[in-house]
Amino acid sequence: MTMKHNTIVFSIIVATGMLLIFGCHKSTCSKISVNENSIKAVILAKEYAVLTRWYNGDPMGFIENSWDDVTYFDPSLISRIDSINAFRKILEPIKGLIHIPSHKMDKTQVSIFGEIAILTFTDVFSAGNKTARWHATEIYLQRGNDWKLIHSHWTESKVQY
Amino acid sequence: MTMKHNTIVFSIIVATGMLLIFGCHKSTCSKISVNENSIKAVILAKEYAVLTRWYNGDPMGFIENSWDDVTYFDPSLISRIDSINAFRKILEPIKGLIHIPSHKMDKTQVSIFGEIAILTFTDVFSAGNKTARWHATEIYLQRGNDWKLIHSHWTESKVQY
Repeated sequence: MTMKHNTIVFSIIVATGMLLIFGCHKSTCSKISVNENSIKAVILAKEYAVLTRWYNGDPMGFIENSWDDVTYFDPSLISRIDSINAFRKILEPIKGLIHIPSHKMDKTQVSIFGEIAILTFTDVFSAGNKTARWHATEIYLQRGNDWKLIHSHWTESKVQY
Repeated sequence: MTMKHNTIVFSIIVATGMLLIFGCHKSTCSKISVNENSIKAVILAKEYAVLTRWYNGDPMGFIENSWDDVTYFDPSLISRIDSINAFRKILEPIKGLIHIPSHKMDKTQVSIFGEIAILTFTDVFSAGNKTARWHATEIYLQRGNDWKLIHSHWTESKVQY
């Protein structure tokens, strides 16, 4: 190959790289969009599976779905839980205690920003003669090919109806 | 310049770009670390300023510190607040109502993942003869040169001491 040829080939490689990094052709954009939708589907499926286990007395789905450096808040805590070991410690005592036949993830929203996906929703279920509503902020982080929780925050709604 | 010269200059530009995108020289890494620390400082200062206004009867600091598509949870809500207009609507009625002389942001942690910064802490203050503790997850998103809230979640701790 000549120097001119080398320069042209090199320019094409760089231009393609720049296109991938800074912009996208219509077909590339569609691929990104399809990819975003598949990430959203994966995250919703993961959360649903964890909650199904939770309502059947098995809280450990949350541990399997969390990174080692996960942090966690709920109204029963005096301050933030830092690390998966501390998270495991508060979940173990409730093994086998919760049995709720059905629940609904209401108003789910997943927003993706690079390696972070923010899932928010309100989980709704019947508890005795009232309807309980728990607001959830589940922040998933991608490491390698997997998405797991890096932070989780749950709040019970005080609104009764 | 000759074609050879052009190619060399072009290669240096591309190599520098690749270094910035995919890796870093020791001095570059230090700059990234310094930059991360300055982002953390900016976010903590923003949150502290908003809370200082909040405890002095001015909740509108939250509006100025939020993007238009902010979402929000607290225990008083039946479901998630979507958009700054809906957020403004729930904050306006409490203008002038809250007067707390001092508070403390306890156990602050800021984690940065690209354009997302996750600030978590427990805000502690005296309310009558008890100590109130509110857990906060404040997710900041960078757009242009500014960082503002894209999602906010607050929970009152039930632990009394």
